[in-house]
Amino acid sequence: MLEPREVREKFRAGLRVPTSGYCPGFAQANLLSVPKEYAYDFLLFAQRNPKSCPILDVTEPGETSAAIFTGDLRTDLPAYRVYRDGELVDERAEVTSLWRDDLVSFLIGCSFTFESALLEAGVPVRHIEAGTNVPMYRTNRECRQAGSMSGPLVVSMRPVPADLVAAAVRITSRYPAVHGAPVHIGAPGLLGIDDLAEPDFGDAVEVKQGEIPVFWACGVTPQAAVMRSKPSFAIAHAPGHMAITDARDSTYQIP
Amino acid sequence: MLEPREVREKFRAGLRVPTSGYCPGFAQANLLSVPKEYAYDFLLFAQRNPKSCPILDVTEPGETSAAIFTGDLRTDLPAYRVYRDGELVDERAEVTSLWRDDLVSFLIGCSFTFESALLEAGVPVRHIEAGTNVPMYRTNRECRQAGSMSGPLVVSMRPVPADLVAAAVRITSRYPAVHGAPVHIGAPGLLGIDDLAEPDFGDAVEVKQGEIPVFWACGVTPQAAVMRSKPSFAIAHAPGHMAITDARDSTYQIP
Repeated sequence: MLEPREVREKFRAGLRVPTSGYCPGFAQANLLSVPKEYAYDFLLFAQRNPKSCPILDVTEPGETSAAIFTGDLRTDLPAYRVYRDGELVDERAEVTSLWRDDLVSFLIGCSFTFESALLEAGVPVRHIEAGTNVPMYRTNRECRQAGSMSGPLVVSMRPVPADLVAAAVRITSRYPAVHGAPVHIGAPGLLGIDDLAEPDFGDAVEVKQGEIPVFWACGVTPQAAVMRSKPSFAIAHAPGHMAITDARDSTYQIP
Repeated sequence: MLEPREVREKFRAGLRVPTSGYCPGFAQANLLSVPKEYAYDFLLFAQRNPKSCPILDVTEPGETSAAIFTGDLRTDLPAYRVYRDGELVDERAEVTSLWRDDLVSFLIGCSFTFESALLEAGVPVRHIEAGTNVPMYRTNRECRQAGSMSGPLVVSMRPVPADLVAAAVRITSRYPAVHGAPVHIGAPGLLGIDDLAEPDFGDAVEVKQGEIPVFWACGVTPQAAVMRSKPSFAIAHAPGHMAITDARDSTYQIP
């Protein structure tokens, strides 16, 4: 089993994969780096939307590593997205040449963190079985605004057999720092999701007979806020291609 | 049983009491109001020290109520402390005349919130039995710094019978937003507390034979940070004299 440092080295060397199932036992994180002038608004946005934006760590301006991520934030994720004025302008393997001294980086909890616990309890995780990226959807639910930052809630979806939905709720509830309990169970239409086969990010997965689509708040929500709120510049992970931290899953587990 | 609104009216009319045991079922909160120029540093300080400074709500500058507190933040707490350049300069029943349009108010989780759950489980809460304020102590543990904000961890202490300490841990762990699990159990000397009979805030309580002093991170930590970090101005609750919110305890309970 590779250590987080070793996996980050592979990503730095060019490996590009969704990270679900990688480095089980270690927490994964969403990345958002914005110029300092936007940092307060984003930190407040996160505080006001803790289900979708649970902050695990925040760097000082310009820093390229963090307390829970001793790698290099510019190179050690498998893929990055770059936004200018809210427009996605690039997807890249590294962002060293774009880095700025005024970038404050936020590491935000990721639901991949509790997938090991789901698997251990016998709850299947379809996108791991399929070897694809988790499906993610923009919803019709509005986040609480904070200054210049606003946007819709983004959710990830996992199909869960009906008799295991309660177990999935109970298990993921114990990880509030990585999105915690589902925000919605069944009835995707009520979230404004017309077709589960057409995710806004990631890959569609099969929902089998007797399975219920279960929706968790997703750390791509900050990127949806960037698209809406149009800060002059932002760097983020490519959805599903997360920062592998040095923090153990158990750090974020409530008994 | 009085509703939060009714209790707040009593405080507004002049009642001055520690709020432990008041309005059971509703969350209580610490208050810190600082000028906008300090808001980012404090929000980051809170994020980096979530055990002692779990943020429940943040106002816009100048606002006198909050999403979880529909009363008036200037009058509806039983008592306030006022700091100038880090010095405690006043303790007052209300702060209307001192209010400023640039004050950002932080409502921070309070361990009084989980005391009902402790009592229901048969864990005695000594300061409620005694009708006094909870004892609070500055420790030798340093919080993680954020910009201009630094300071020591402050803890509250409850003596717990040795055979109920595990239950107290299990129960309070379920409330991470109001300090969660204890930070220290027994051995007050290791926290730099020489004499439990001399708390830095609140009132001493008896530790009976067979009881262990159990320490939870405390929302007075922000006031200790104000004393160390010396922002030009700050308003806080008087320790133990909390904001009674409209949010139910269960909002903050993890299953």
